Amino acid sequence: MSHFTLAACLTLGAAMQGAAAQAAPPVVRIAELEIEPASLEAYKAILTEEIETSVRVEPGVLSLNAVSIDDNPAHIRLLEVYASQAAYEAHLKAPHFVKYKVSTAGMVRSLKLISTTPIMLCAKSPAAHCM
Amino acid sequence: MSHFTLAACLTLGAAMQGAAAQAAPPVVRIAELEIEPASLEAYKAILTEEIETSVRVEPGVLSLNAVSIDDNPAHIRLLEVYASQAAYEAHLKAPHFVKYKVSTAGMVRSLKLISTTPIMLCAKSPAAHCM
Repeated sequence: MSHFTLAACLTLGAAMQGAAAQAAPPVVRIAELEIEPASLEAYKAILTEEIETSVRVEPGVLSLNAVSIDDNPAHIRLLEVYASQAAYEAHLKAPHFVKYKVSTAGMVRSLKLISTTPIMLCAKSPAAHCM
Repeated sequence: MSHFTLAACLTLGAAMQGAAAQAAPPVVRIAELEIEPASLEAYKAILTEEIETSVRVEPGVLSLNAVSIDDNPAHIRLLEVYASQAAYEAHLKAPHFVKYKVSTAGMVRSLKLISTTPIMLCAKSPAAHCM
């Protein structure tokens, strides 16, 4: 894993709020979706493009991680990290996000959005490339 | 957000498996925990230390993100990304992980581990510091 060299952590749990008080906390959300099975591959392709574009072009979209549940692959979960509430609201109006919402409207059986508070967000720092 | 300059994406969804076939897929897991409310702050402090240490010292621990659910803060979720199954197994034997498990054994009401398959893991590339 030579392309991972450093670690960057975002610590904002209640126990650390004193230390992090000077930084605005990010907005972190979980999304739980159930997709129409017949549309699953099409949905994943559209989601993949939307995530890549959002993180690349929007300064305030810090990370978007999407996975499918192995026991039920039509169940998708996302962990979304935005720099601020303003960044989140800007994301909702971004053309690539609007395109995603319109394109997938008929594919989504259910969508549950869960507001969260980060305790610790920690990742190795990758070099400048995509895998 | 000048400390975020680049984006790195890990694309391993079914739609992209051809392009990513040469790379071993990471092991991605969701953990859902319910913590004894009286132990919540102590638990979060121990978890924070365990996450920071794991990502810093273990080459195969790519990211660990922990959040609490705002509607029920004693409910914690983690998204865990390991470079491989071997990296995951090494993590389970790491002294800081064993210390975390022993220290928090009496604090955890329930633990559910969910195996997942990544669709898209995408984050800006932070510079070499922690927030």
